[in-house]
Amino acid sequence: MKLLGAALLFAAALVSGQDAPYWTYKCEQDGICYKQRFGQGTTQIQSLAVCKMFCDAYAALWPRPTGAISLTKTLVFVDPLKVHLTSKNSKEGKYNTLVANLEQYVKSIIASQNRPQTGVVTQSSDKSARAAKRELDIVLNVADPNVVRPGLSVDESYTLKVITNSAETEPIHAEVTASNIFGARHGVETLLQLVVWSNLDNSLVMPIEVNLSDAPVYKHRGFLLDTARNYFSIESIKRTIDAMAQVKLNAFHWHITDSHSFPFVVSTKPELHKLGAYTPEKIYTHDAIRDVVEYARVRGVQVIPEFDAPAHVGEGWQFGDADNLTVCVGQEPWTSYCVEPPCGQLNPLKDGVYEILNLIYKDMLSVFDSEVFHFGGDEVNLNCWNSSAAVTDLMAQQGYGRSDSEFLRLWSDFQERALTELTKANNGTRVPGILWTSHLTESGKVSKYLDSGNYIIQVWTTGKDQVIAELLQAGFKVILSNYDALYFDCGYGAWVGTGNNWCSPYIGWQKVYENRPKKILEDLGVSQYADLVLGSEAALWSEQVDEQALDGKVWPRAAALAERLWSDPDEDWKQANMRMINVRERLVSRGVMADALQPEWCLQNDDKCKLYS
Amino acid sequence: MKLLGAALLFAAALVSGQDAPYWTYKCEQDGICYKQRFGQGTTQIQSLAVCKMFCDAYAALWPRPTGAISLTKTLVFVDPLKVHLTSKNSKEGKYNTLVANLEQYVKSIIASQNRPQTGVVTQSSDKSARAAKRELDIVLNVADPNVVRPGLSVDESYTLKVITNSAETEPIHAEVTASNIFGARHGVETLLQLVVWSNLDNSLVMPIEVNLSDAPVYKHRGFLLDTARNYFSIESIKRTIDAMAQVKLNAFHWHITDSHSFPFVVSTKPELHKLGAYTPEKIYTHDAIRDVVEYARVRGVQVIPEFDAPAHVGEGWQFGDADNLTVCVGQEPWTSYCVEPPCGQLNPLKDGVYEILNLIYKDMLSVFDSEVFHFGGDEVNLNCWNSSAAVTDLMAQQGYGRSDSEFLRLWSDFQERALTELTKANNGTRVPGILWTSHLTESGKVSKYLDSGNYIIQVWTTGKDQVIAELLQAGFKVILSNYDALYFDCGYGAWVGTGNNWCSPYIGWQKVYENRPKKILEDLGVSQYADLVLGSEAALWSEQVDEQALDGKVWPRAAALAERLWSDPDEDWKQANMRMINVRERLVSRGVMADALQPEWCLQNDDKCKLYS
Repeated sequence: MKLLGAALLFAAALVSGQDAPYWTYKCEQDGICYKQRFGQGTTQIQSLAVCKMFCDAYAALWPRPTGAISLTKTLVFVDPLKVHLTSKNSKEGKYNTLVANLEQYVKSIIASQNRPQTGVVTQSSDKSARAAKRELDIVLNVADPNVVRPGLSVDESYTLKVITNSAETEPIHAEVTASNIFGARHGVETLLQLVVWSNLDNSLVMPIEVNLSDAPVYKHRGFLLDTARNYFSIESIKRTIDAMAQVKLNAFHWHITDSHSFPFVVSTKPELHKLGAYTPEKIYTHDAIRDVVEYARVRGVQVIPEFDAPAHVGEGWQFGDADNLTVCVGQEPWTSYCVEPPCGQLNPLKDGVYEILNLIYKDMLSVFDSEVFHFGGDEVNLNCWNSSAAVTDLMAQQGYGRSDSEFLRLWSDFQERALTELTKANNGTRVPGILWTSHLTESGKVSKYLDSGNYIIQVWTTGKDQVIAELLQAGFKVILSNYDALYFDCGYGAWVGTGNNWCSPYIGWQKVYENRPKKILEDLGVSQYADLVLGSEAALWSEQVDEQALDGKVWPRAAALAERLWSDPDEDWKQANMRMINVRERLVSRGVMADALQPEWCLQNDDKCKLYS
Repeated sequence: MKLLGAALLFAAALVSGQDAPYWTYKCEQDGICYKQRFGQGTTQIQSLAVCKMFCDAYAALWPRPTGAISLTKTLVFVDPLKVHLTSKNSKEGKYNTLVANLEQYVKSIIASQNRPQTGVVTQSSDKSARAAKRELDIVLNVADPNVVRPGLSVDESYTLKVITNSAETEPIHAEVTASNIFGARHGVETLLQLVVWSNLDNSLVMPIEVNLSDAPVYKHRGFLLDTARNYFSIESIKRTIDAMAQVKLNAFHWHITDSHSFPFVVSTKPELHKLGAYTPEKIYTHDAIRDVVEYARVRGVQVIPEFDAPAHVGEGWQFGDADNLTVCVGQEPWTSYCVEPPCGQLNPLKDGVYEILNLIYKDMLSVFDSEVFHFGGDEVNLNCWNSSAAVTDLMAQQGYGRSDSEFLRLWSDFQERALTELTKANNGTRVPGILWTSHLTESGKVSKYLDSGNYIIQVWTTGKDQVIAELLQAGFKVILSNYDALYFDCGYGAWVGTGNNWCSPYIGWQKVYENRPKKILEDLGVSQYADLVLGSEAALWSEQVDEQALDGKVWPRAAALAERLWSDPDEDWKQANMRMINVRERLVSRGVMADALQPEWCLQNDDKCKLYS
């Protein structure tokens, strides 16, 4: 998968005195860009961005493509005001809208990358003889324009071909071929990473010829945001989706409510958000969510709603006479009734609970347009139910005992009724459900309470948990969010005491990158079930974060996940290190406040910041 | 120090139907604000912000004042467009400018706090009968207008008095009395924290009467930013100083260069920044620094420059024939020659080094206007010198041996010459110097190489290091930056390998708060030297951060340091928890992207998010 491409073409560079840069970069045989004093050993001018694109085996792309890559190592200048995107295919309805929105997306990215400086007069030595800025025409060639919803069944593969002919008046021609708009979109994303700002040329530049094919290894490449412990503005959610699109993550898992707050507007039960939102402004209206869903769609991202129940409820449910649909709300000492303040669980034996679940599900299905639905279903505290007469009285009436297994039966009966309500809310059509690992999926019980035909299980225990093996053996499809590698909220201070939080330490990007689903299965001796692993998700639980520090806690770590899932390289993080530092810069250049991983010196001095050999 | 003040006055509240809020807050005897369903148990309306200000023993101020506080628990509405600040004193020259700039500062803060909403028609029950919005006149009464430079010798105490008379057309009158503008500025800062946005009143409000006196415990309350490992824009530096001002930190320690980059412009040696800056734009010009210094001055913050030498140099020193003023620059394997890549040290036996130091010092003294100068002086690698013939040849010529103690003598001779150059650069007047703890200050050697009359020592070892005791016994003044509590870059991933960085884990705000200089001395058995402890500094070394994630890594943790140093409470962090959550919100409301410490639920439900009793 090394860069093939033609030999470097160097036009004569006439640079002297004031015009000369102090530093230039040179690609050596080892695939590393060396910073060199201009005039001392080299008189060729190449900017860092161009050097990295031409020098790196994967053209500094992130995630690295899984198919062949070929770049001709000659630059052509791109006119940022003359970028167009069209489709060869039928342009009706939703597809048409998606193509038009994708063109807007491309134009906005190109504009963000164009950073003209004053006083720059040098020009790189590896520019095309045709140095005028050229139009860029991107053409999509999509087999099935009817696929307009991102999701597990979508083929995301694509090929990208760039041709630049010698006539200066002709546009650069980029063609992306794919089964559907979502594969094509990924191809466009790849193309956008090959249009780089060259500070020494004072221009956007790209290779004159590209041939590249690509497809992801895993279908589900997700990120979870919890907007209930703390609220996140729509703007910050969109910025997160922007970043996801850039690294080809495709699932935004929206943990939208919890015991702390209820920001989701249920139109038929407005008390939920009016009582449950932190402030009247901190809500998610249907319009706002639909806007996010469409925003995500053009970026190839599915938005998956989670309504977590029967635990993780509380605020919002204090309406009038239905107050008693919940138990343990805000009960103290919280350590006896839940894992963190405030406590709260639904009373699973109240019919009113299911009436309201139906209303919530209906609204969620109508605004999210997701092919799957997340039921949550984690961390039910059996003692909460057991210590609430409102629950135990009804249990006695309905023939439940008081053993742990009877409480688990009660819980699974709840889940069964919730599933029924979801299907009803979807006009009788079954929606695939997702559930967290929980007491219901404990070792030895994985098939006892749940049907693998109904649920995908999202694993949040460690990557060494035997439960993963049992789930796969029982036929469950799984999504891995093992907290020891994918919980991005780990490692900060405690918020209910002193010291550090429960899942410390902080997880570096290297560990995220090394969290290989295949290795997890191999270590558990269940490699034969690899096809049941849909993919992974990183999670940002928001007890200790809101939109202020969001970007830096997620990025660029989520990019490490993205490459693990898209490319699943055999090599370890070290081969990705230089590209990772680079993709972080790209995220920042596109408005994402990604954290810095190294001194900028390391960006400029490839391969020098290491303790490994 | 409990709030004294008059009994609460409640005007009749006429609220019903659509106008009624869902939730209101009520202050109980325990000093805690309880969130209550409006209409169920209470018909009084009080916003959370007002409740916290009136309920908390320290009026939700941060840092908490050290003198008496008295607030009358009745509100007056403040007209954000009619806030004025004047001084009773002579208004000539620098003082005049400072007062004018302070008025601008006040107006900008007030504007940022004014957040009118549409559709809000409720009014709090505890408003003054005089509900019209009133002018606010702030008058400074300063004993010595000639004090115009913040620093260690400045008396920062103040008293604040607010009077609101009954005539609705009369302004609210706030008078701040202090020895000098810097104490007065702190009083204004306190006043600004008492002008709060009340969302239920849709207005800025404040108490009608205030009497308060205050003074800091420690003189040096600092924050270090390293702008060499990664660059920080002037805008982000100013934002940091804004936040420092808000919590009365008073020293911005600018670690402006390092081996990685040289962004400081030395006008007489422009090669340094031209070769050494990461990009031509990533520099600090004299104008930009002077702008920062004046910006900081009006915020009561001294800007202290550090030029770190003889280690921590490298990039920038590659000019022409003077190339050999440095040794080990970029040498590999770096582990043999420095603590992190890239290596680099000055050759202390080259006269050219001191000529350039003189130029650097001259420029730094001229633009920073600081009463102290930081020489750096940490982490000299003796093996670097010992393995460089350019050093050892000259050592042999000049009679130095090759033992460790001879290398230390070489280093201290360097420091002596550097001090001489600094004094020359300051036209012969001695400038107090600061040095980091290092091999020169190791146990048993603290008085051997350095004179306690010339240097303040900044301690960056742990708070249990016996060296602290020895330094104090030797008469050194010290600033504590013990890394186990005050290095805010700790706890993230490694940047030169895997795992977590060297000083992990992440330091929670509670630990910062509990880092008591007095306790450190007590534990080391040297409490009698308490007067030699000038204060503390938190540090953000920037290998793994730039301006993107700056705010969240510093704030609100640096606020914990601020209260420890200003107020030095006997109580532990638990008494500060609710105010800390509150000051974090205040930082955000003023444009600082401070990290969240708890779910917003904890802000709204005082004292419920805890594992302690």
